[in-house]
Amino acid sequence: MQVLVAGANGKIGKNIVKQLHNSDQHTVRAMVRKEEQAEELKKKGIDAVMANLEGRKEAIKKAAKGCDAVIFTAGSGGSTGADKTLLVDLDGAVKTMEAAEEAGVDRFVMVSALQANNRNNWNEKIRHYYVAKHYADRFLQASSLNYTIVRPGGLLNEPGTGKVTASENLLERGSIPREDVASTVVASLTEENTYKCAFDLIAGETEISEALKKI
Amino acid sequence: MQVLVAGANGKIGKNIVKQLHNSDQHTVRAMVRKEEQAEELKKKGIDAVMANLEGRKEAIKKAAKGCDAVIFTAGSGGSTGADKTLLVDLDGAVKTMEAAEEAGVDRFVMVSALQANNRNNWNEKIRHYYVAKHYADRFLQASSLNYTIVRPGGLLNEPGTGKVTASENLLERGSIPREDVASTVVASLTEENTYKCAFDLIAGETEISEALKKI
Repeated sequence: MQVLVAGANGKIGKNIVKQLHNSDQHTVRAMVRKEEQAEELKKKGIDAVMANLEGRKEAIKKAAKGCDAVIFTAGSGGSTGADKTLLVDLDGAVKTMEAAEEAGVDRFVMVSALQANNRNNWNEKIRHYYVAKHYADRFLQASSLNYTIVRPGGLLNEPGTGKVTASENLLERGSIPREDVASTVVASLTEENTYKCAFDLIAGETEISEALKKI
Repeated sequence: MQVLVAGANGKIGKNIVKQLHNSDQHTVRAMVRKEEQAEELKKKGIDAVMANLEGRKEAIKKAAKGCDAVIFTAGSGGSTGADKTLLVDLDGAVKTMEAAEEAGVDRFVMVSALQANNRNNWNEKIRHYYVAKHYADRFLQASSLNYTIVRPGGLLNEPGTGKVTASENLLERGSIPREDVASTVVASLTEENTYKCAFDLIAGETEISEALKKI
């Protein structure tokens, strides 16, 4: 698959781009906001395009053209305000879905957040973040795209273990290394069991490929 | 019609409640956030219920029970931040739609904003407000409710004239007294020409009832 990664400069995004670049199965196109980010990637031999999620949809559509799948892992980040969350995590995400549809891309994998689907469990302090993720996910589910929504728990910077717990509705909370989130997203691309499916993801004891087959 | 007004304490909301209360055709139930607001209304002989748009859906559902229509005219207001906009104008609105559906209410009239449907024309300074209104409107259109979306231009506090310009896609910008927005919303309730319809609204030269028939 030729895969566009929106949010390629984020922590999970960088991991996904690296894995796709090293893969025999996929080729990657990294979508970034800044010229210097694109240059940095191109130096490593990685195809990079510039498009701003707060800008016009047309630039994203152009970036998606010719791709088989889009991975959305962009986020305004914890340090920005609710206005940026609305513009990037919600409007930026939906624009990317619309751009994918219009560019003829069928497959769309979304990096969401644990409990984004469950309004009553939203953390008070960042409720606006959950609102944005919640509605972006609902738009994706209502779209014509063949989606997968991955809802990871608390994100850790430690190295991945390759082992996870994945389920449509996990009862426990938990955390997971970003590297394992990236591996799960990449493995989902071609795993038909994750098509039109949303699932929770935390660190666990099952190999990723096995876990995805059992969701 | 028995009509629930969400946002009954706002400037447009108060106008709508007054008009419905004085109407021979309708009865009104005012939904407000604070005890003292409910008491104030009850003193005037107006049915009032308390429910917080940032709270649980169940309270809104209870308020909507037995009603024939819901009017949503709540807004976090210009002085609050983007987090409140997300929680009230988007999540509060969608919760109210879900509550209406679950309570068996069929008719839903939304007070939106001019250009909320047109991403490329959003005012930079309050783009987050347009994002929230845009997605609330899109959810309403995708719902099972018999909706009307009214998109007024700049809101004025001066007395209404009873005359407006209404169209599915106005080319000009403009403003309108809040009292005329309220009259248009109330007139829309039973005007079948506005069912499953969204329209722009500014001050004009046509009687409201006539304008609604020509949309």
